[in-house]
Formats: sequence, structure tokens, C-alpha cells
Amino acid sequence: MSATATLQSERTTVRRLPARGAYDRDTVYAILDEALICHVGFVVEGRPAVIPTIHWRDGDTLYFHGSAAAGFLRAMRNGVDACVTVTLLDGLVLARSAFHHSMNYRSAVILGKAREVTGDEKLRALDTLVEHVCKGRSADARRPNQVEIKQTLVLGMPIDEASAKIRTGGPLDDEEDYALDIWAGVLPLQLVPQVPIADERLNAGIEVPDYVRRYRR
Amino acid sequence: MSATATLQSERTTVRRLPARGAYDRDTVYAILDEALICHVGFVVEGRPAVIPTIHWRDGDTLYFHGSAAAGFLRAMRNGVDACVTVTLLDGLVLARSAFHHSMNYRSAVILGKAREVTGDEKLRALDTLVEHVCKGRSADARRPNQVEIKQTLVLGMPIDEASAKIRTGGPLDDEEDYALDIWAGVLPLQLVPQVPIADERLNAGIEVPDYVRRYRR
Repeated sequence: MSATATLQSERTTVRRLPARGAYDRDTVYAILDEALICHVGFVVEGRPAVIPTIHWRDGDTLYFHGSAAAGFLRAMRNGVDACVTVTLLDGLVLARSAFHHSMNYRSAVILGKAREVTGDEKLRALDTLVEHVCKGRSADARRPNQVEIKQTLVLGMPIDEASAKIRTGGPLDDEEDYALDIWAGVLPLQLVPQVPIADERLNAGIEVPDYVRRYRR
Repeated sequence: MSATATLQSERTTVRRLPARGAYDRDTVYAILDEALICHVGFVVEGRPAVIPTIHWRDGDTLYFHGSAAAGFLRAMRNGVDACVTVTLLDGLVLARSAFHHSMNYRSAVILGKAREVTGDEKLRALDTLVEHVCKGRSADARRPNQVEIKQTLVLGMPIDEASAKIRTGGPLDDEEDYALDIWAGVLPLQLVPQVPIADERLNAGIEVPDYVRRYRR
């Protein structure tokens, strides 16, 4: 494997609050794997565009997909520079001073260029996608047929240049503010599955699968 | 008020699945106001950068803030084109076919240029920020002093050119797939507050405020 251990580069180095930065694959991959949505940035006629989309990872490759008619995928397919950012929000940090309010979060930024994925890699990637979103689902869902595979564009981006940025823990107030009688602490936030809603046209007698009932990120 | 009713432009028109697009301020503002995080895209030396940050809204202006030392704010302060994207994830849509799997979401894209905000507008914006993140908190938290105000850069961006894109409802399978004995439906996802964690140095006898205990987006 030619992949290097560190993902740090001049451009991915965290300048603001550098102690929050991390550049190892384990840290970056854990963020990518938990998140369901990324924001893909690219340049169109000199101007920025940022599109929310599903991403998933297999090894050291980050994947995207969509209709072959989707404009942003067609732009990316041509190998333009992309910046992919993923953010997980973990909580509100309520300090005694308005100034020191913050949020706990884990974010990852990946820089690179995507290429179109075809053949066996495309089939494997589409299976991995279903498992990324909902582990266990690919054994149940009808797999894509030839027409559907053709209609889907899959792009892969090597993960070579990236960073993570993470804030954890409670508020950090100015020393004199600790005397103030103001509640301070963290309100954790979590993306929580609610009660599944069965499709109106569901065949009789089909139970909610365990992987849906027990779903968690 | 000179603000136009529609936020649609050539560049904000939703091309892919246009029925999901909306361009009225009420729809776009509801998404901006619920979200705690946005992703700001801009161009640096011809390449894209996407930064997660807190945003908030007051009237027809979208605000951002941070340390005056933050690189992305300094870049934006100079009036570069920005693309601000906000995404709320509402659920997994599990269709009978892998191909028709989807997600329910509400996203908004705002295009524009930011300017630095100063004076009274800056003070009001910083109060509005605290209320955006945690309604009720600004009455308790110590307000910023002159030094803190100086250390904080606040940018405002007029909301003139934008779009929302929304998917709701259950899966839409191919007609012949409805016969399959596969569970299908929606697994709703929600950002849910967990039990508040008081700061270790909290003064004795301070209760968790109602606005924290009953927090919801």
C-alpha cells in the first residue's frame, strides 16, 4: 500500500487553534464513516459551489454518486479540484461569557480530484454505499440492474491530503468569570433515529428489520 | 424594504429534480434558522475551500463570526464570492431497490459576498447569535466587553440569491418492485439534546436553566 500515514500538507494544516487538528487516517476515517452527509466544494467559472451529498469510504478512497445527469458530478468527473468537508455536531458549549460560547464538533476536510469509477469497482462501491448508510440493508434490498448501474455515476477520490478538527469538553471561561453565578456546561446533541414509518404500500406481514429497529450511527 | 420576494436566479435554479426546489424567503429562512452549522465555500488561489461554521440570520442578512485571526473570515471580509450551504438531515428513505434508496433532507444554498459589520449592528448581531444557538441564553451570559468585541470579526451577507431543496415522504419504487417482500419506509432522524453536563467548576446551587433543559431545534 502506497498510502502515507499522515494526511497533513501545507494546505490541510489547521492554522486556527492548531491543537484541535489531527492528520492520521484513523481519526479522519472515523469521522467520514459516521457522517451521512458531506459538503463538496468546487469552482465553477471562478466561483465557489457547495453541494450536500452522500459520501462513503472504502479503504483509502472516498466515493460519491448520483444521477449521471447531476451537474456537480459531471463537473467533478472532469477532474477538477474538490474540497470535501464533513461535520459532526456533538454539543453546545455554554460558557459564562457570551464570548467563550462554543460547540463541540468533529470535522474532516479532504482535498483532491475525483475520477469516474467503472466495472467491478463500481458494483462493489454501490454495495458499500448501502452498507454505509444502513448496515445490514444490502442483504435485503434488490440490487441494481444493468440499466440502473448505467444511470448512476460513481466517483472515487483518493484520500491523500486531509485534516480533522475536533473540539471536546466543557467551556473554558476567563478566570474571573468562574465566580459568576451563571450555569455553564455542555448540552450534548445526537442524531437519534425515531420510530420507523412503514411505506403505505408495504406487503402485509413484513416486520421492521432489526438493522432498522436498532439503527444508530 | 428593497428585498425581492423570490431568491431565484440563473445560478440558484435547481436543475436536478426541479420539483424539490423552492425560492421563497419563508422556506429558505426556516432552514437557516433551524440549522446550527453551515458550510461556507470560497475560492483560494483558484481552488475551492469549504469551512464549517456557525451562521445566524437577522432579517434579510446572514451573519458569520469568528476570531479576527481566522483565515477564512479574513478572506471573506475582502468581498470574495461565497456559497453558503446549510443541510438538515431528516431521515433515511429505504426503498425496495437499492437504486431508489434516498434521504429526506432540507437544504439551502445562499450566494453572495460578505462585508464586515461594525458598531451597533455588530453588537446586535452578537446578541442575536447567542439567541440563535440557544434561545434565552443571552439574558444570562456575560455580554462581550470591548476587548472581546474587538477580537471578534462579524461578517454580514445580504440574502438576495438563494434556493432551498427539500425531499419529504416515503420511498418511490419501480412499480414491479412493490410486489417484493422487502421492508420499505422511512427511518426519521432527529438532532436530539441529551442530558446536560454541568461544568466542573460550576458554583454550588445553580440549576440547569429551563432553556437548556427544554432545548430543542
